[in-house]
Amino acid sequence: MSHTEVLPLLEPQAAVPCCPPLNERPMSAGEAEIAAKMFKALGDPVRLRLFSAVASHEGGEACVCDISDVGVSQPTVSHHLKKLKDAGLLSSERRGTWVYYRVEPAVLAAMGALLAGTEKAT
Amino acid sequence: MSHTEVLPLLEPQAAVPCCPPLNERPMSAGEAEIAAKMFKALGDPVRLRLFSAVASHEGGEACVCDISDVGVSQPTVSHHLKKLKDAGLLSSERRGTWVYYRVEPAVLAAMGALLAGTEKAT
Repeated sequence: MSHTEVLPLLEPQAAVPCCPPLNERPMSAGEAEIAAKMFKALGDPVRLRLFSAVASHEGGEACVCDISDVGVSQPTVSHHLKKLKDAGLLSSERRGTWVYYRVEPAVLAAMGALLAGTEKAT
Repeated sequence: MSHTEVLPLLEPQAAVPCCPPLNERPMSAGEAEIAAKMFKALGDPVRLRLFSAVASHEGGEACVCDISDVGVSQPTVSHHLKKLKDAGLLSSERRGTWVYYRVEPAVLAAMGALLAGTEKAT
């Protein structure tokens, strides 16, 4: 009898459409928890550069092998990409040796809308 | 002779239009430093709620006296508002006893555009 188990494929994190435009009403504690996590993920210069490298790479996706010019080691790149994924900003897919990362457009559009709405505040 | 001095008024921080959409090209180190600072300022749930409280307050501005319902002390509120100001997201103006904070729409619009551009990445 085989001990091989079919491991569930990791689904890209569900795109959480969070939250209303910042100037619509004061954010609830729950909304702020979700949104702050995403902002925090982009709140590091190296992580932001890596995120930009993925987003601007051909086809909107990249593997660690594609982005090595930000002056940090490959394990550090992997670490930061994982943090971006944990925050729901990137999804990932393994193909052979490499894991490919892709921006999560729905989440980013929601973050953009959240900020863009504040233009009307003044 | 009076010892009263006229203190210079604090100018609202210059709105830095930073940076190109994240999917246009990989961010430079300098651009990432600026943008990460702004994202980091929003990367804390309490700070994000306070920011939202200011943005959604009547007239798009508020003083510490207006926002006291996020469950932290007034000195903590002041501390977080200062951090948001230091990141260029809020400007402030003293009127009598209170300092009034206002969202910086140009900076926020730039941040929104930076993220919104990534919708086209996939």
